[in-house]
Amino acid sequence: MSLSLNQWTTRRWSVAEAVDGCVRHELAAVGLWREKVAEQGLAETVRLVREAGLRVSSLCRGGFLTGSGPPGEEDRRAFARALDDNRRAIDEAAELAAACLVMVVGGLPGVRPGEPLPASSVSHEPAADGSAPGPPGFSRDLAGARERVAEALEVLAPYAGERGVRLALEPLHPIYCPDRAVLSTLGQALDLCLAHPPEQVGVVVDTFHVWWDPRLFDDLARAGGRIASYQVCDYLHPLPADALLGRGMMGDGVIDFGPITRAVTGAGYTGDVEVEIFNADVWAADPDEVVATMKARYAALVPVG
Amino acid sequence: MSLSLNQWTTRRWSVAEAVDGCVRHELAAVGLWREKVAEQGLAETVRLVREAGLRVSSLCRGGFLTGSGPPGEEDRRAFARALDDNRRAIDEAAELAAACLVMVVGGLPGVRPGEPLPASSVSHEPAADGSAPGPPGFSRDLAGARERVAEALEVLAPYAGERGVRLALEPLHPIYCPDRAVLSTLGQALDLCLAHPPEQVGVVVDTFHVWWDPRLFDDLARAGGRIASYQVCDYLHPLPADALLGRGMMGDGVIDFGPITRAVTGAGYTGDVEVEIFNADVWAADPDEVVATMKARYAALVPVG
Repeated sequence: MSLSLNQWTTRRWSVAEAVDGCVRHELAAVGLWREKVAEQGLAETVRLVREAGLRVSSLCRGGFLTGSGPPGEEDRRAFARALDDNRRAIDEAAELAAACLVMVVGGLPGVRPGEPLPASSVSHEPAADGSAPGPPGFSRDLAGARERVAEALEVLAPYAGERGVRLALEPLHPIYCPDRAVLSTLGQALDLCLAHPPEQVGVVVDTFHVWWDPRLFDDLARAGGRIASYQVCDYLHPLPADALLGRGMMGDGVIDFGPITRAVTGAGYTGDVEVEIFNADVWAADPDEVVATMKARYAALVPVG
Repeated sequence: MSLSLNQWTTRRWSVAEAVDGCVRHELAAVGLWREKVAEQGLAETVRLVREAGLRVSSLCRGGFLTGSGPPGEEDRRAFARALDDNRRAIDEAAELAAACLVMVVGGLPGVRPGEPLPASSVSHEPAADGSAPGPPGFSRDLAGARERVAEALEVLAPYAGERGVRLALEPLHPIYCPDRAVLSTLGQALDLCLAHPPEQVGVVVDTFHVWWDPRLFDDLARAGGRIASYQVCDYLHPLPADALLGRGMMGDGVIDFGPITRAVTGAGYTGDVEVEIFNADVWAADPDEVVATMKARYAALVPVG
């Protein structure tokens, strides 16, 4: 395993700057984000990483496949648009020879990341037949949203396979279940994998998202070759007001990286280890200092082999 | 099943006021908190609930059994003190004839609810032997904390059994794993139960804490008579800055109460249904209005039978 910079950790850097930073800090791999790749241009990004001799450890991200609201015509159109966007993400991952395309599958249909629930949803009058009021604007059907993800994978996994791209399903911490990922545990992600060949669909193990899970070590033991990406960062306590930014530099939070890393390597994972940090203080700091700290903390706290 | 007011929902009310409120609003049960009972006096509380003809659906709460920090003398003393306090809580639950004593088991040793990590813990220099730095002031040993809970139950379950009290293990949402409960899923709580008779140890099913869990319905199906308490409130989105206060009135968040309630009744649960809401707006409102809203929302959104 070797250390990879997920470029969102040094969010201020463009793709060109992140590639240059990896070279200067002697990192062999970089995790890229689609927004940043689009700003740099896909062809130019391909040229930059090739000339630098970097591996692309992941492309972030596809997903958001759960639709736009309660069942209906608009929801079906949104689902079709999401599939199209994911096909484009797969094409980009293929161009970049990324080790995987990270999939953040999406939350409850119509619940937007970080935004309040649609105002029209706040209706508590029973319907005419006495049944509970409907939730206009979004859907509380969690089981249905999860089925939708499986349905999307039936379409996307073969498409990815034809292009040599591996989809990496990322279970997110349950705090993100409403708005970002109805995929909440490693076990659930592994179960979803089973319908597809290992080279088409794997999982992301991100310490922030899975450290609390009482079934983590059992699920890592059965993950075997399904681990497509291993990401490390710490879980801050208390979380900041915006929980999305609760990811910290290794050592600043509550996670014991030793047992998890040993279980990941024990499952046979030999890929790169990305550090992906969403954190206002980290983003405000000098990116070169962030990368230096990341390397030192990784060496001290994330045992390898 | 019938509706019970957990008195923290009307936090401004004393025990006497909450008992009076339940009578005026024609509720048959109340969930009490130890702090409030202590303010009212235990004997006086017993008299008030008996004269009002109320059931005590739960006493909140025992727990915090994971110790005070890294292994050592001080941690052992803290564990012994916690056992003593839990014996007192069991005695109180017996006096009150509470249907159960809710157990919030505690987080990582030395991590205090809502407080920053001990400052002394932020040390990232490797030890002299090159190993990762120790975490002075708290422990990152999650597996060890979980074992500590099982160890405490070996002592407390028989003590409760002798007094006719049932301990109700409450899995808390994983967001509270660092500081409040290393018990994070219903499945984990049920597994802990197995070492003890059903009349001594059961579980709390609280919609806020478990709604996201992909294994929820499988675990409810195997819970059978182990469900000691069913609590309902909604999960707000986005969560407020203090996630502890993200519990909302039913209908204000993302939870679909129908499937969960049907699974709880399908498991054979016939006890009271508590509404326990931690929410700054609810606490600021007129408690009588809160209870009226609670009754209306319960009738509209929480199907019974």
